[in-house]
Amino acid sequence: MPKPFRIGIAGLGTVGTGLVRIVQEHAALLDARAGRPFEIMAVSARDRKRDRGVDLSAYRWVDDAQELASDPEIDAVVELIGGSEGLALDIVRTALANGKHVITANKALLAHHGFELASLAEEQGVSLAYEAAVAGGIPIIKAMREGFAANQIKAVYGILNGTCNYILTEMRETGRSFTAVLEDAQAQGYAEADPAFDVDGIDAGHKLCLLASLAFGVKPDFDALKIKGIRHIKVEDIAYATELGYRIKLLGIARRGDDGRIVQLMEPCLVPTGSPLGAVEGVYNAVYVEGDFVETSLLTGKGAGERPTASAVVADVMDLARQIRVPTFGVPAQELEQAAWAVTGETRSHYYLRLHVLDRPGVIADVSAILRDLNISISSLMQRGRDPGQPVPVVLLSHETCHADMEAACEKIAALACSVEEPCLIRIEEL
Amino acid sequence: MPKPFRIGIAGLGTVGTGLVRIVQEHAALLDARAGRPFEIMAVSARDRKRDRGVDLSAYRWVDDAQELASDPEIDAVVELIGGSEGLALDIVRTALANGKHVITANKALLAHHGFELASLAEEQGVSLAYEAAVAGGIPIIKAMREGFAANQIKAVYGILNGTCNYILTEMRETGRSFTAVLEDAQAQGYAEADPAFDVDGIDAGHKLCLLASLAFGVKPDFDALKIKGIRHIKVEDIAYATELGYRIKLLGIARRGDDGRIVQLMEPCLVPTGSPLGAVEGVYNAVYVEGDFVETSLLTGKGAGERPTASAVVADVMDLARQIRVPTFGVPAQELEQAAWAVTGETRSHYYLRLHVLDRPGVIADVSAILRDLNISISSLMQRGRDPGQPVPVVLLSHETCHADMEAACEKIAALACSVEEPCLIRIEEL
Repeated sequence: MPKPFRIGIAGLGTVGTGLVRIVQEHAALLDARAGRPFEIMAVSARDRKRDRGVDLSAYRWVDDAQELASDPEIDAVVELIGGSEGLALDIVRTALANGKHVITANKALLAHHGFELASLAEEQGVSLAYEAAVAGGIPIIKAMREGFAANQIKAVYGILNGTCNYILTEMRETGRSFTAVLEDAQAQGYAEADPAFDVDGIDAGHKLCLLASLAFGVKPDFDALKIKGIRHIKVEDIAYATELGYRIKLLGIARRGDDGRIVQLMEPCLVPTGSPLGAVEGVYNAVYVEGDFVETSLLTGKGAGERPTASAVVADVMDLARQIRVPTFGVPAQELEQAAWAVTGETRSHYYLRLHVLDRPGVIADVSAILRDLNISISSLMQRGRDPGQPVPVVLLSHETCHADMEAACEKIAALACSVEEPCLIRIEEL
Repeated sequence: MPKPFRIGIAGLGTVGTGLVRIVQEHAALLDARAGRPFEIMAVSARDRKRDRGVDLSAYRWVDDAQELASDPEIDAVVELIGGSEGLALDIVRTALANGKHVITANKALLAHHGFELASLAEEQGVSLAYEAAVAGGIPIIKAMREGFAANQIKAVYGILNGTCNYILTEMRETGRSFTAVLEDAQAQGYAEADPAFDVDGIDAGHKLCLLASLAFGVKPDFDALKIKGIRHIKVEDIAYATELGYRIKLLGIARRGDDGRIVQLMEPCLVPTGSPLGAVEGVYNAVYVEGDFVETSLLTGKGAGERPTASAVVADVMDLARQIRVPTFGVPAQELEQAAWAVTGETRSHYYLRLHVLDRPGVIADVSAILRDLNISISSLMQRGRDPGQPVPVVLLSHETCHADMEAACEKIAALACSVEEPCLIRIEEL
């Protein structure tokens, strides 16, 4: 009888509860697959009394989750508390320092402290596993570290936040505003009461940092990430995008340029409707990987929710029980480089630019002159409706242009007397 | 300096050449990721003189590939010869018996001898790895064995042959016949001179057997697989499918029924145009997995070609160099069950049925009577064009019906005096 693999669970929210459920429902299946049983030795959460719909009576209850990190009966601590600092960070640090494996779903923690924690894990000869931290229903960490290990990765693109993708999809399908859809999503439990982490792109940004690290062998660096969320996206922009053959997606981009510098961006982008990422709708997440040998591969699945996320946590537990050990970010931590990040202003793209300007003679000429002076070349222009003296929308698509020039153009156009609203500028990614 | 991982390559066709290319181009990257160097010790192929576009001078040439299987300098034999019997089988058996790991891209070998070889590998404590055998550009073996290891798998659906998918896509887009598109594909090197393995569904069938084994913990059983290829698919059927909101795909289905029996089918199916699999076009492969916790996950990538397939071979090499060991079919071989396969005739589906019948009064009544007598209920009927006394197409969609009844109906309709051509029956999968 092989030695059981013993875990302690810190945090019993939806994911922790899902983890317990899998262990209880699939004990025999998991034992057969891992070649050894695994056991929940102890659990810890803030509120012992809360009914979580699962029977916890077989597990030792620990009031102070910190104790799990030094519990001699535990091989691996599953950290499901969340947050980049405080208790989660303390537990993970202590567990690793005590020679215990750590499994976490905590993207914020790794985006901020990934390099330190990966180094600590390696010094101690243990694993820091985090499949559940990025797109739970997609085995993307494993794919990046193992499945695509033969490749020099050229780029990774991701739709990494289900709440944002759901909101954008709903806005397109129903024509309701961001605010209305968000309120609805909150009422239905699809969005948090405080939606900032989701809709401002922070959650997705954390995930992108981890993918960029895996793709390019660099230290995760959340501070180097430029983030724009989806609050400013209007239904009219979604409608114009649709008309032009695009969807608007909150897109994470990690791409190595010819000069070796890495572009790392999280912002709404126009992607072609029929493209692999354009077709990913609703709460689904997707990651699109370009490697020099595998060419392109797209992985799609649910990004959140109790069951898919718990499935990813258990995949990590199984890996550890099977003694599968891979460096945290694909190469030994000491070989992770400090990335040379591209300056966002220097990135080049096609752009979508939507203005609200007063319908008066000479307005298009003024706008065109600004663009010409910045060497921005227009591939199409569309002016909808005529309403002399009143605001009308004007939509422009640019040829490939430097980002800083587009921003300068936006500033100048906003300053025109005819301009009645901040222009809306969105990058186009022709995937 | 850790011990290098040493491989011998048997077979230097496109995949073998690609493997050499990756090792030469990415030596430093692979070393860093694996934590140890890996070395090609020896190579073998039929024709030593052929120019393969890569420099083989650094590797020992072995005329008899069998020698690799007992070469004391080799840790793993990479079998890229192909074929389910003969040399490939001999080499794999001998290598495993000699305690060497085997990496293979040979789906035919595993579909026919997978259980025997997996058992032998386990007895010897070595791995039998085959990521490249199924959809090279998609890390699906790893996803099934490791990424989704927490799940009871409910179903796996796959588009597993790029040649077929390319032909069907071309037929739809250009309106050219199967034969014309196939000839073109052969001329361009996308299809083999003898296309039977591809277009008759055998290659895809081999792959499906492996996925079914992984999904359900059963012995791979190619003989239990019902296969229908794509030769009989006509442009008009593709056009009607499009009009009805479907694509025709050669679809592999492995699904466990409520009675525990497993449906294993490889046949052209109608899938909704906007569904995840409906959107997979051209040479791409895709696998759609339903698990009880992960819910649904779709993985897409190139299924063939030198570079994606070699990428998958190297992923296996990296796994072995990293000492990642997982049972061949996800659970120890002795725990693989003999599946209870569902009888195809008893499977239930919606169906597409296209007839060519003489345009005469009473024909629809005759057809309808046959269907009624078999308890087949029609959800829609469409008759195109009117040409009294001449053959016209009639397209019917059925409600959920037993397969055997549909086949019986086809037989009876074919026997009607008004029937001028074998009816075309295609399963509908509403994914």
